[in-house]
Amino acid sequence: MCGIFGIEGREDAANHVYLGLYALQHRGQESTGIVAWDGARIGLERGMGHVAEVFPAEVIARLAGRRALGHTRYSTSGSSVVENAQPIVVTTSMGPIGIVHNGNLTNALTLRKRLEAEGSIFQTTSDTEVILHLMARNPRAELVDSLIVALTEVEGAYSLLVITAQGLIAVRDPHGFRPLAMARLAGPNGIATCFGSESCAFDLLGAELERELEPGEVVLVDGTERRSYRIPVAGTPRRCAFEHVYFARPDSVVFGDPVGEVRRRLGAQLAREAPAAADIVVPVPDSGLFAALGYSRESGLPFEFGMTRNHYVGRTFIEPRQSIRNFGVKVKLNPVRALIRGKRVVLIDDSIVRGTTSRKIVGMMREAGAAEVHLRISSPPTAWPCYYGIDTPRRSELIAAQKSLEEIRAFVEADSLAYLSVDGLLASLSGPRASYCTACWTGDYAVPIAGEDRRQAELFPAESDLP
Amino acid sequence: MCGIFGIEGREDAANHVYLGLYALQHRGQESTGIVAWDGARIGLERGMGHVAEVFPAEVIARLAGRRALGHTRYSTSGSSVVENAQPIVVTTSMGPIGIVHNGNLTNALTLRKRLEAEGSIFQTTSDTEVILHLMARNPRAELVDSLIVALTEVEGAYSLLVITAQGLIAVRDPHGFRPLAMARLAGPNGIATCFGSESCAFDLLGAELERELEPGEVVLVDGTERRSYRIPVAGTPRRCAFEHVYFARPDSVVFGDPVGEVRRRLGAQLAREAPAAADIVVPVPDSGLFAALGYSRESGLPFEFGMTRNHYVGRTFIEPRQSIRNFGVKVKLNPVRALIRGKRVVLIDDSIVRGTTSRKIVGMMREAGAAEVHLRISSPPTAWPCYYGIDTPRRSELIAAQKSLEEIRAFVEADSLAYLSVDGLLASLSGPRASYCTACWTGDYAVPIAGEDRRQAELFPAESDLP
Amino acid sequence: MCGIFGIEGREDAANHVYLGLYALQHRGQESTGIVAWDGARIGLERGMGHVAEVFPAEVIARLAGRRALGHTRYSTSGSSVVENAQPIVVTTSMGPIGIVHNGNLTNALTLRKRLEAEGSIFQTTSDTEVILHLMARNPRAELVDSLIVALTEVEGAYSLLVITAQGLIAVRDPHGFRPLAMARLAGPNGIATCFGSESCAFDLLGAELERELEPGEVVLVDGTERRSYRIPVAGTPRRCAFEHVYFARPDSVVFGDPVGEVRRRLGAQLAREAPAAADIVVPVPDSGLFAALGYSRESGLPFEFGMTRNHYVGRTFIEPRQSIRNFGVKVKLNPVRALIRGKRVVLIDDSIVRGTTSRKIVGMMREAGAAEVHLRISSPPTAWPCYYGIDTPRRSELIAAQKSLEEIRAFVEADSLAYLSVDGLLASLSGPRASYCTACWTGDYAVPIAGEDRRQAELFPAESDLP
Amino acid sequence: MCGIFGIEGREDAANHVYLGLYALQHRGQESTGIVAWDGARIGLERGMGHVAEVFPAEVIARLAGRRALGHTRYSTSGSSVVENAQPIVVTTSMGPIGIVHNGNLTNALTLRKRLEAEGSIFQTTSDTEVILHLMARNPRAELVDSLIVALTEVEGAYSLLVITAQGLIAVRDPHGFRPLAMARLAGPNGIATCFGSESCAFDLLGAELERELEPGEVVLVDGTERRSYRIPVAGTPRRCAFEHVYFARPDSVVFGDPVGEVRRRLGAQLAREAPAAADIVVPVPDSGLFAALGYSRESGLPFEFGMTRNHYVGRTFIEPRQSIRNFGVKVKLNPVRALIRGKRVVLIDDSIVRGTTSRKIVGMMREAGAAEVHLRISSPPTAWPCYYGIDTPRRSELIAAQKSLEEIRAFVEADSLAYLSVDGLLASLSGPRASYCTACWTGDYAVPIAGEDRRQAELFPAESDLP
Repeated sequence: MCGIFGIEGREDAANHVYLGLYALQHRGQESTGIVAWDGARIGLERGMGHVAEVFPAEVIARLAGRRALGHTRYSTSGSSVVENAQPIVVTTSMGPIGIVHNGNLTNALTLRKRLEAEGSIFQTTSDTEVILHLMARNPRAELVDSLIVALTEVEGAYSLLVITAQGLIAVRDPHGFRPLAMARLAGPNGIATCFGSESCAFDLLGAELERELEPGEVVLVDGTERRSYRIPVAGTPRRCAFEHVYFARPDSVVFGDPVGEVRRRLGAQLAREAPAAADIVVPVPDSGLFAALGYSRESGLPFEFGMTRNHYVGRTFIEPRQSIRNFGVKVKLNPVRALIRGKRVVLIDDSIVRGTTSRKIVGMMREAGAAEVHLRISSPPTAWPCYYGIDTPRRSELIAAQKSLEEIRAFVEADSLAYLSVDGLLASLSGPRASYCTACWTGDYAVPIAGEDRRQAELFPAESDLP
Repeated sequence: MCGIFGIEGREDAANHVYLGLYALQHRGQESTGIVAWDGARIGLERGMGHVAEVFPAEVIARLAGRRALGHTRYSTSGSSVVENAQPIVVTTSMGPIGIVHNGNLTNALTLRKRLEAEGSIFQTTSDTEVILHLMARNPRAELVDSLIVALTEVEGAYSLLVITAQGLIAVRDPHGFRPLAMARLAGPNGIATCFGSESCAFDLLGAELERELEPGEVVLVDGTERRSYRIPVAGTPRRCAFEHVYFARPDSVVFGDPVGEVRRRLGAQLAREAPAAADIVVPVPDSGLFAALGYSRESGLPFEFGMTRNHYVGRTFIEPRQSIRNFGVKVKLNPVRALIRGKRVVLIDDSIVRGTTSRKIVGMMREAGAAEVHLRISSPPTAWPCYYGIDTPRRSELIAAQKSLEEIRAFVEADSLAYLSVDGLLASLSGPRASYCTACWTGDYAVPIAGEDRRQAELFPAESDLP
Repeated sequence: MCGIFGIEGREDAANHVYLGLYALQHRGQESTGIVAWDGARIGLERGMGHVAEVFPAEVIARLAGRRALGHTRYSTSGSSVVENAQPIVVTTSMGPIGIVHNGNLTNALTLRKRLEAEGSIFQTTSDTEVILHLMARNPRAELVDSLIVALTEVEGAYSLLVITAQGLIAVRDPHGFRPLAMARLAGPNGIATCFGSESCAFDLLGAELERELEPGEVVLVDGTERRSYRIPVAGTPRRCAFEHVYFARPDSVVFGDPVGEVRRRLGAQLAREAPAAADIVVPVPDSGLFAALGYSRESGLPFEFGMTRNHYVGRTFIEPRQSIRNFGVKVKLNPVRALIRGKRVVLIDDSIVRGTTSRKIVGMMREAGAAEVHLRISSPPTAWPCYYGIDTPRRSELIAAQKSLEEIRAFVEADSLAYLSVDGLLASLSGPRASYCTACWTGDYAVPIAGEDRRQAELFPAESDLP
Repeated sequence: MCGIFGIEGREDAANHVYLGLYALQHRGQESTGIVAWDGARIGLERGMGHVAEVFPAEVIARLAGRRALGHTRYSTSGSSVVENAQPIVVTTSMGPIGIVHNGNLTNALTLRKRLEAEGSIFQTTSDTEVILHLMARNPRAELVDSLIVALTEVEGAYSLLVITAQGLIAVRDPHGFRPLAMARLAGPNGIATCFGSESCAFDLLGAELERELEPGEVVLVDGTERRSYRIPVAGTPRRCAFEHVYFARPDSVVFGDPVGEVRRRLGAQLAREAPAAADIVVPVPDSGLFAALGYSRESGLPFEFGMTRNHYVGRTFIEPRQSIRNFGVKVKLNPVRALIRGKRVVLIDDSIVRGTTSRKIVGMMREAGAAEVHLRISSPPTAWPCYYGIDTPRRSELIAAQKSLEEIRAFVEADSLAYLSVDGLLASLSGPRASYCTACWTGDYAVPIAGEDRRQAELFPAESDLP
């Protein structure tokens, strides 16, 4: 998963992108990069690490110009090297192009093989590079036209930002899997246009959210001039419902719904579908907070901060030696014993992937003295891998694809376990039910994916892993 | 403020200290250090930064031994250099000694001048060094006796851990300003003894909290043998109530009370003392969470996560250029507009220092559309500097020392403002009222401090700032 | 200028390349990189800095395999970023390819424009990338055939090493501008083959120099099997005589001649052509050492180490503030006053580029008390830019292109000045006179270069500097 | 061994010290530090690494003031940590004091034990700290008087620079073991005074060497005012002759003699004492260069640069794996085969310590084809450890203390071996024979050292290594 942000028409554009990425780091914090067009060339800075580490003041200062965009990335495979950090910048016959991408192309490997056969060379192991090759092979007088031609060939999920000498371009794929919104930022020299994965980035800048891009829409901004295009490909909207369940920040508005509010509705619906005879409702922080509050209100059971989270846990935590085991979860979460002891607890989490973390958290509740632990999940069972931007494990590793509800309950050692229903989830969202992607729960993929048991990262392997 | 942790009697002692410090980083995260006694010498590693940054696996591996202690520190003055990081290790005629200190000595400067006149040289700008000089000048056959003699001369707040060839020593000052607790950790080779600033550190290690040290108590542990001593100085307990209000982690038990539970009681008491005609209760995260829940329950007004906190804000955040101002708070906190819009909000925070942050947060609520903002503070007005370990500004900078309640309300631009009463606060704690230090609210210092308008850091200035 | 090294057929191939590059750092030390083929993929590690900085043991350990090559580079333009560090690794329809390059392609820009027009995208600002695109567009069953086809299109200077799944390939351009030699390294499992820019790299490994590649030769090694090919392009040898004058290490054998020995012959010839009435001969260390010894022997004037060099001067030397000027040379070189005072000095240097450094060194001799300073240069006047791998300034900045001999003498403030003649230089080399490139002295370029006053780096500008 | 430099009376004093240390890095490059007095306090910056690494421009910029001094250090024991880097800065009743030290105190341990018994605490493992404690226990109205009192108690070798609020103080011990010279630097605001270990540091700054401090002299400079004092302790001069043989830079003037000139005389004397039937004279670079030139001239045998040195070998060179052995010397030195092959070589080096390096170099000559190798050493056999600042191994590790001349020859596998005689060496120096320390060759120590087989570092062990 990734966060993207861009701005057109403001001095210190890179500085604004820096702030926008700051607000989007929950979407990825392993590597980050910013490019800016200074009127003559595209400057690029990127690196491994948090936004604040990669961009000390002197690095941002190298990126002059009124047009800039950036990316913050969570790597899912072993290829977490700076060469794969975005943006990617290349030169073509149409001039220099820089690009960032949130999503995942499902036919990238097929396209790469075709392009290689035609003489293209690939320098990264990122599916994003395919788009640039397609553009280079389909030059047009207007670069945006070349981009649109290229996009008619790719399938999958993509929200893109593209920087060129001609302007800043924002794109959302025809299914609209991933969010991408547009905002206006008033300044001393007129109105600047911002694009970002979530509205919380606009809040930080004081920019005003205008609207989300429509599925299949392409917006080109040059100074204050904006033009809108369409990717000429049919596609019904398939907005990722998991953004609401887990990924987006609760203070963002995504797909027209305020995320925190949606989560509370999910919790309330969960209380209706799966009540529990218990004393208190405890969220797994931070992802379960809003759903737990909703569950509490609907059920009438008191909400308690029964678990605290250590926010100083960083990427570099060292697992201690053999003599001290299983610290992964304990270092991050600690039960508040005084609140738990002797209580029947409804524990609210957003999802279960492999089940091992849930098992540890339930155990932690018991060690802290909980009389009973009733685990309630504010989304349906995750039984299918996502191929549209969230790198879930392959199906064989997903506990809900392998075990029955009762078997999962037994594995996590809860007294009871319930998930939210797909219907209950969709009823909590304001859009038409068919407009959401529910593939990770239902297996109903917008486009069929060949192969039985793969994960997203395996759709576009590094060169040497190719068959 | 600082966190300290030590262990005696366990292989990989330094590894355990690393974990203990990990849990205590909310008490200070600017620099950290660990020492271990390997049977022949005291090894020392320390550095600027978070625990995980300073202690990669290969650094911890250098610290062999079954006896170790460590420190995590928040620097309050400009002298944030590695030379001032604790532990301090020295050699004396009694052998090598390492020491860590949580607190502040109020007569350190007087003692330093006397020691310098007698020929001592000071190599750090830390008041802790005074204790080591006093020990060196009062050698005893038993090193712990030398320590006790030294401590009869110092005044102020100190929880200490001392490592020597003879054992690990833990000390709490006669007033017991700062917490320090003892725990037992069962292992393959018997019971180890742990000491730590808060019980949350024991939870992480799976150690069992035994008790807090008593005010004036000195505990020497060598292997599994423990001996207890007394500092022969009269002192009534003066436990820092602000630990409960703000400093300690909510999952810790401090001075016999579970911190999260106390905070909820403070919120409930605040609701009784200062109700508000409002629609929702919103905490300033994370410090106001428990108090807001208490206020909500007592008042019957719904609790809302109306503000989110960006946990990726690190030490290195760069304030952007002039064109983008006032990001200090916005980068960290963002209102959830959907919850705030049109609502009359009771905003709960733990304290107000200078008033500037509160003013920004109230403004943020209004920008997000709050109809009214009623600010409620879960402690009394902070009107006096702390000289006992928390480096508050001098009195002239504390808004509650300079302005009336109405003036403060006007400054922060709230519709109403109320603080918790001192009585209400003390009633929420389980100990006798007189056993708590309330100096920051009442000016009632255990020991009078000369000078009208100083801050703690000015009690022991760096050499060149001496008069 | 750059150094390249490769090995095929030895365990720990990357470790051997590391040592080979270590010996070649005088050819470039700004960035360095190594690739290794582990039987399944090409691993790449590269970075800014010295070989020892970029390759700590744990980094080399990531590069498994029996086939590896590497590069050490001196950047000449502002684009000294890790993205431009070699090797470059790409994926094509023929599989992965890694390449390193010593030299400069003179028609790279023309080729890039053609390739871009055909839909190729460029990701680096290195002319080397052109070769990879040409290969990708001309796939062959045997990858080496594709490489040979590509090379028929490029012009200029190149010694290449290429790593593929099929083997290690070494190439020297048809003019043979840059050196590239082959050696055999006996080991427990048979004979490995090494390639390197200079023989000193083989000495370090204990490998035995076999021969230089012939101009236009392509050697493919797979295990112990070697095959030799020819680039089907006519070209008379044009071996860079400046390698002997300055670039190569004196303990290397280059183009069949031992470099130190050649330099001494140049000095002796210079003594014959341009004697001086003087007391001592002093080299500018270290480049003038051998020539000065030759001059001394031929002239009978005593050789003196009249200047010392500070070897601790690194890349990071900070020019001090305005109050302390002109330290560039003084920090590196210091006269030995006791030897210079009152003496008539023959000062021997290898070349004069802009004249400013020579002026400082002559001034330094005078300040140290030299009675007279007679500057003698062991090569002809550098009057034309090199386009074949050495990034000399443009012609307008070369003092010998702009001033007469007497004007140069006056500028550097020497009592007399003489250069070696082109004839004298060529007479000191063992090959036929026509087989050497003398373009930097004579302007006699093997292939005419369009444009009047450019430097090599301007032949292949970064994308945004394109017209 | 260490280098020290100080300046009084010039803006940007720290910047000048930086340059002075730059010139002195051959005396130590493991750690470095600078202090400056800004009129109110002593600023300190220090770190591990080369001068240019530790002092980027922004670090030097923190050190304001017209009075500064610095240190560059080669650590000889395992305690190569930043805590031991000099300068040391402390506060005493007389105010802050900063100190740097070149040399070694032979009675430091005795003094430390006495001071500890009197209540002093030691924070470093450096013998220099003893001097500060002695000062603190003997305060005087004039700080310089306190320093002189302290120095009457210490024995051994020391050149010191001390920074205080009152001025900059330079000291040379009564035996004058280590060099320390004084220079004047004219500037816009008058004459500044510099002190440095060697005159080459003055050359870099353009300062004019005035004179060396006399043994036992103390010079206090405050602005342009200078006062000279004497340490009231008898001591005959014992100037370290090994400074001339190896340590000092050849462009320095030390103890009144130009170092390069002395080395050439040593080589000439060696030729007279130990001629060889050979074809060429080859120096081991760089330490044997001047002596080889002297040997060549005296013997009439031609001088050849028969070995080159790789100057890119840094502190971080990684010894490669088992499969590639013995690279220590080969990475640094390479024979010039064309010059060596078939020749009878006189190989000139400055000294033999353990013999292992000499053995490798002789072997290298043979592998390069030398017909015979005659090793000539330009100093007498090193048979006794130095306790005065150069950390030679203990006597049991010195080959000349353990083996006869013939046994050493056999060990290093030379055809013949000869050392310079002590008489021959002393005859090459301009001072009276008795004024030089020759202890490392003769065992004639100025002050007897207890213990049979120790090295200098063992005279003042770290605390935990104490008996």
